[in-house]
Amino acid sequence: MTEVKQYQGRDYDVIVVGAGHAGSEAALAAARMGNRTLLMTINLDMVAFMPCNPSVGGPAKGIVVREIDALGGEMGRNIDKTYVQMRMLNTGKGPAVRALRAQADKHAYHSEMKHTIEREPNLTLRQGIVDGLIVEDGVCKGVITNTGAHYRAKSVVLTTGTAARGKIIIGELMYSSGPNNSQPAMKLSGDLERLGFKLERFKTGTPPRVDGNTIDYSVTEEQPGDPEPHHFSFETKDEDYLDLKHQLSCWLTYTNETTHKIIRENLDRAPMFTGVIEGVGPRYCPSIEDKIVRFADKKRHQLFLEPEGRNTDEWYVQGLSTSMPEEVQQRILHSIKGLEDAEMMRPGYAIEYDVVAPYQLKATLETKLIKNLYTAGQTNGTSGYEEAAGQGLMAGINAGLRALDRGQFTLKRSDAYIGVMIDDLVTKGTNEPYRLLTSRAEYRLILRHDNADLRLTDKGHELGLIDDDRYAAFEAKRQAIKDELDRLGKIRIKPNDDVNAFLRAHNSGELKDGVLAADFLKRPEVRYADLMKFIPAAPEPLERHIIEQVEIQIKYAGYIEKAEERVERLKKMEAKKIPDRIDYDAIDGLATEAHQKLKKIQPTTIAQASRISGVNPADIAILSVYIQQGRIAKVKD
Amino acid sequence: MTEVKQYQGRDYDVIVVGAGHAGSEAALAAARMGNRTLLMTINLDMVAFMPCNPSVGGPAKGIVVREIDALGGEMGRNIDKTYVQMRMLNTGKGPAVRALRAQADKHAYHSEMKHTIEREPNLTLRQGIVDGLIVEDGVCKGVITNTGAHYRAKSVVLTTGTAARGKIIIGELMYSSGPNNSQPAMKLSGDLERLGFKLERFKTGTPPRVDGNTIDYSVTEEQPGDPEPHHFSFETKDEDYLDLKHQLSCWLTYTNETTHKIIRENLDRAPMFTGVIEGVGPRYCPSIEDKIVRFADKKRHQLFLEPEGRNTDEWYVQGLSTSMPEEVQQRILHSIKGLEDAEMMRPGYAIEYDVVAPYQLKATLETKLIKNLYTAGQTNGTSGYEEAAGQGLMAGINAGLRALDRGQFTLKRSDAYIGVMIDDLVTKGTNEPYRLLTSRAEYRLILRHDNADLRLTDKGHELGLIDDDRYAAFEAKRQAIKDELDRLGKIRIKPNDDVNAFLRAHNSGELKDGVLAADFLKRPEVRYADLMKFIPAAPEPLERHIIEQVEIQIKYAGYIEKAEERVERLKKMEAKKIPDRIDYDAIDGLATEAHQKLKKIQPTTIAQASRISGVNPADIAILSVYIQQGRIAKVKD
Ligand SMILES: Cc1cc2nc3c(=O)[nH]c(=O)nc-3n(C[C@H](O)[C@H](O)[C@H](O)COP(=O)(O)OP(=O)(O)OC[C@H]3O[C@@H](n4cnc5c(N)ncnc54)[C@H](O)[C@@H]3O)c2cc1C
Ligand SMILES: Cc1cc2nc3c(=O)[nH]c(=O)nc-3n(C[C@H](O)[C@H](O)[C@H](O)COP(=O)(O)OP(=O)(O)OC[C@H]3O[C@@H](n4cnc5c(N)ncnc54)[C@H](O)[C@@H]3O)c2cc1C
Repeated sequence: MTEVKQYQGRDYDVIVVGAGHAGSEAALAAARMGNRTLLMTINLDMVAFMPCNPSVGGPAKGIVVREIDALGGEMGRNIDKTYVQMRMLNTGKGPAVRALRAQADKHAYHSEMKHTIEREPNLTLRQGIVDGLIVEDGVCKGVITNTGAHYRAKSVVLTTGTAARGKIIIGELMYSSGPNNSQPAMKLSGDLERLGFKLERFKTGTPPRVDGNTIDYSVTEEQPGDPEPHHFSFETKDEDYLDLKHQLSCWLTYTNETTHKIIRENLDRAPMFTGVIEGVGPRYCPSIEDKIVRFADKKRHQLFLEPEGRNTDEWYVQGLSTSMPEEVQQRILHSIKGLEDAEMMRPGYAIEYDVVAPYQLKATLETKLIKNLYTAGQTNGTSGYEEAAGQGLMAGINAGLRALDRGQFTLKRSDAYIGVMIDDLVTKGTNEPYRLLTSRAEYRLILRHDNADLRLTDKGHELGLIDDDRYAAFEAKRQAIKDELDRLGKIRIKPNDDVNAFLRAHNSGELKDGVLAADFLKRPEVRYADLMKFIPAAPEPLERHIIEQVEIQIKYAGYIEKAEERVERLKKMEAKKIPDRIDYDAIDGLATEAHQKLKKIQPTTIAQASRISGVNPADIAILSVYIQQGRIAKVKD
Repeated sequence: MTEVKQYQGRDYDVIVVGAGHAGSEAALAAARMGNRTLLMTINLDMVAFMPCNPSVGGPAKGIVVREIDALGGEMGRNIDKTYVQMRMLNTGKGPAVRALRAQADKHAYHSEMKHTIEREPNLTLRQGIVDGLIVEDGVCKGVITNTGAHYRAKSVVLTTGTAARGKIIIGELMYSSGPNNSQPAMKLSGDLERLGFKLERFKTGTPPRVDGNTIDYSVTEEQPGDPEPHHFSFETKDEDYLDLKHQLSCWLTYTNETTHKIIRENLDRAPMFTGVIEGVGPRYCPSIEDKIVRFADKKRHQLFLEPEGRNTDEWYVQGLSTSMPEEVQQRILHSIKGLEDAEMMRPGYAIEYDVVAPYQLKATLETKLIKNLYTAGQTNGTSGYEEAAGQGLMAGINAGLRALDRGQFTLKRSDAYIGVMIDDLVTKGTNEPYRLLTSRAEYRLILRHDNADLRLTDKGHELGLIDDDRYAAFEAKRQAIKDELDRLGKIRIKPNDDVNAFLRAHNSGELKDGVLAADFLKRPEVRYADLMKFIPAAPEPLERHIIEQVEIQIKYAGYIEKAEERVERLKKMEAKKIPDRIDYDAIDGLATEAHQKLKKIQPTTIAQASRISGVNPADIAILSVYIQQGRIAKVKD
């Protein structure tokens, strides 16, 4: 066989490898910041493809989508154009845990994103496989494709997902493959290893798909969407919300003892347990066989039947991810209420793939080893579309800034879930596919669904990703909230019959003295609309999101203030920088584990150092003193 | 690695392998005839996928689509639901060469067909790869999949397209792959060889796709659709036709001397010419490098820029199929007017694949070697969606009839283009990808676009593929045509001032005596609408397709009659059956070549024998006499 002849392609500012959820955001961000950007991906028919659940959002993840939107990313707009059902979760609970979740039309999600990318002026989308990197003197200068093209660029983002040396496993069957039987990327991993990167092997899995015409919905529980409008993007208008007639329902069913028995009896054929699967799987999206083993006394597990789109009868069985043999999958399905006669259209499978262990990254998602090289998404050891998109956006921004010769951009743990996630990854690493959970955030009350724009739009605008019109609208909204808060902080409500009758009816203590409108609204029983019965309306009619903000900010003011105090304290710690290339060997007294971890992770601030597991307060004290004292030993380059 | 454990799946009546254009028709037909049918295919996202041109129809092919529709197949309905442009070709010429052609929304075409299949009650669509056949005593009993499933059935249809041991080639780059980088089927071919089939190696190719945002349309020629309604399906209504505002245009440009120079200078890197490509390519869809070499003195070649769909900016460059290296493809593109700055989104490529040499088939598309096993489509050595669909329908019908224990179904050369194609394949074989051309049909004036329903609806109804409602509507139409023909054969037009003024104005000889309305309409200058000025209208208003039929049948009556006489003569020859298992070794006097060919092809009638190339009239005479004389020697089974 002849060698593939190499040739010089044209130059770009930024190159993004892989057009999954991470790569799509990365490329759009870099291009929108004014960089001539190339997005290379294995198959154009799989741009922003969802290999697993046809849905976006949910706890923590949904908030990431809002953050992406506030920073000028695409995921929120894209799902708002292509959902088939929209539902706000946890509406009964506090605003910190509210989360939006949408069922997507999987194909439409892909094709809308692809079309958006195609229309982006600075962006070229091209099919091809990147086999290697051009690296000169420790600096990444471009990529080399399987067709022999050498493309040079100022910075490169890798978002290769589950395709890197991908291997699909279904029972005893095993073969090289990317997700959904796509081509895997077999060579790039080797090049990364050659460059000195440490790769790990993770795995994830997906459930079987069934023919909706063969489901007996009547014995399952309907899960309809919400009638009142919700959107992921701050730009989507209420009038574009689909009424319930145009939304599709999901359906709830359960596994049962028979299901569990079938699984238990076939554990000797489960690749998860026979040693066939070497990759580490996601703890928070376990396969059904894993759940049966780990929660042996649970009598049943929830399963949601979710449509894969409008123009298809394929249904996704959420909760039934598995790599059991096809035959066993079929028997599992048929043991489930509503699925007794279900035809399986595609079997579930597990996929193993290569991951760049994320301690090798800076908080900017640039690799420590190779300058101007960034990685994002599943490649960094995460799991989930939203996690990938959030990282992709950040890596694209930083690669874009690098190409423009501007400073880098990071988000703190108190700025955004995206900040929490990236800090977790680069500080703690992960030894299993990492998923965002609300419990990972220490400032949950600040990192809310409803205030993502207030938290991040300034930054998005400064980066050039939020245009002036949108920014002006945002500023008007912010001002309106402030004005109304001020107003309510000044108006007094006097006790009178109306007010007290209202309070009695709502089991709230009667007023004896006058109170500020703001304090009146603080009462859990009082809504903003109630308050308006007793005081004059705002000078301009207020939009519902402004009212929502005013309510939340007043009702939760105490908690929010406390959280903000903690953030302030943290900021001081974050301000204590650890000098570059500090030589930990020269610091006396560090515990052995702390010494090793600090060398490996190379935190950039004392705050980050303190979050590394195995680094104790005593170590932090030693390190702080060492740095304060000022004579820092450095390692050679 | 563990062996994949085998298991018994449920039984079916008919199994179809491969859901391309052939497999989709085959499975729908078998299921609609009342057979419990399984359709297995490698990737559900590629059901009825168009790996090459985003269009359906054109000369001969368009007529096949009408024939498929008249027999109750799906292709016509499917393209009528998903076209982006519709155009009747050759409207200036006679009705025999008129042909409808549609640009398809490629993705919509796929997803509509998939959805239709999903909703078909007797039909199960499942993802999986068939690795082998279950054959017992020379009879096919089912299939075996890569996941170890054994599905048994009464008959099996193979429609594996270009996936069988597929290999993609782009310049020096070469890798195992199905079309569009899908998974190839690596094992089934080996099983066919083991069973004794002779496989051949063919190749086909596709052009690069470019980003429509980077095309300069202003220097190309617009090719809009037709404003007046046309449909592929006899069931589609005029009111559903898209007006021009909702159709997309194509654009015409040309190669030039620079293009040709680039190609000539790089012929040493063209896999077509360096011996890398071993498969035989399609003469009638040559690659651009092939055209430059074969038509060295042609100054330019037409290129049509065709949209790949509504929600994508990918454009197909018709006429530029190539397997040149990516770099050269890019230079070729940039040499073309309008494409100077075009961004290539996917490179063109060639693909090599295995073909079942079609002389191994009966006219029913059953294999001669293995009973109850049928093959159809690209697998049989053809090229083109329509050719595939036509065969798929026939194979599905026959597999369905077999499962129902009913007699087989064939079409004669005088019945349909489908009949011409299958007779060509099984009688002459093909040593290159076979494409239907009008020149292959000897009864072109009978096998028209406009009369496919008149030719075939009876048969479709008898097969159970045309329901009673549609059949009743068809019969009413047929009757209306007959009534109007009868009426025009009786009414006389007398010479008068009006008539003769009209004739003078249209440069037609004046009437001296009265003539029959039918004869008046025979004049080339007279249209049916003109005639109606001089005679009373039909008792019921006539639909435009009825009028069209009346016009064509009257105007071309002479030619049509002659063709029908030839058909009658042929029928007599077709009636002369050649007995099964006749022993050609026992017939004296046959020329050596004729003897070999007759043994290989095993024609079933004297007519078919006479069409075998290398079998001369003298041989036919000997064979006829031998059969008439009645004592036939048979070969042992
Ligand atoms: C079977 C399966 C099950 C999953 N189950 C879950 C789940 O239960 N829960 C969950 O949260 N997440 C799940 N995921 C993960 C989720 O799909 C990913 O987290 C998400 O898609 C990651 O986005 P990404 O952009 O990082 O990677 P991807 O979406 O995988 O995109 C990567 C892209 O890069 C391209 N690419 C790779 N290598 C190259 C190269 N060398 N050159 C050019 N292009 C390249 C690929 O073709 C692909 O388009 C699952 C994934 C799979 C495959
Ligand atoms: C690159 C390319 C260029 C082409 N160019 C032209 C052209 O210029 N002009 C033209 O007329 N035609 C062209 N064609 C051919 C045209 O695409 C085919 O003629 C048409 O698609 C054939 O339909 P089919 O149903 O026979 O096969 P396909 O459409 O190929 O469908 C076959 C199906 O079978 C499935 N399959 C295969 N093996 C197995 C198995 N073992 N188990 C389960 N499923 C299996 C495949 O996945 C596929 O879905 C081209 C095709 C390709 C790939």
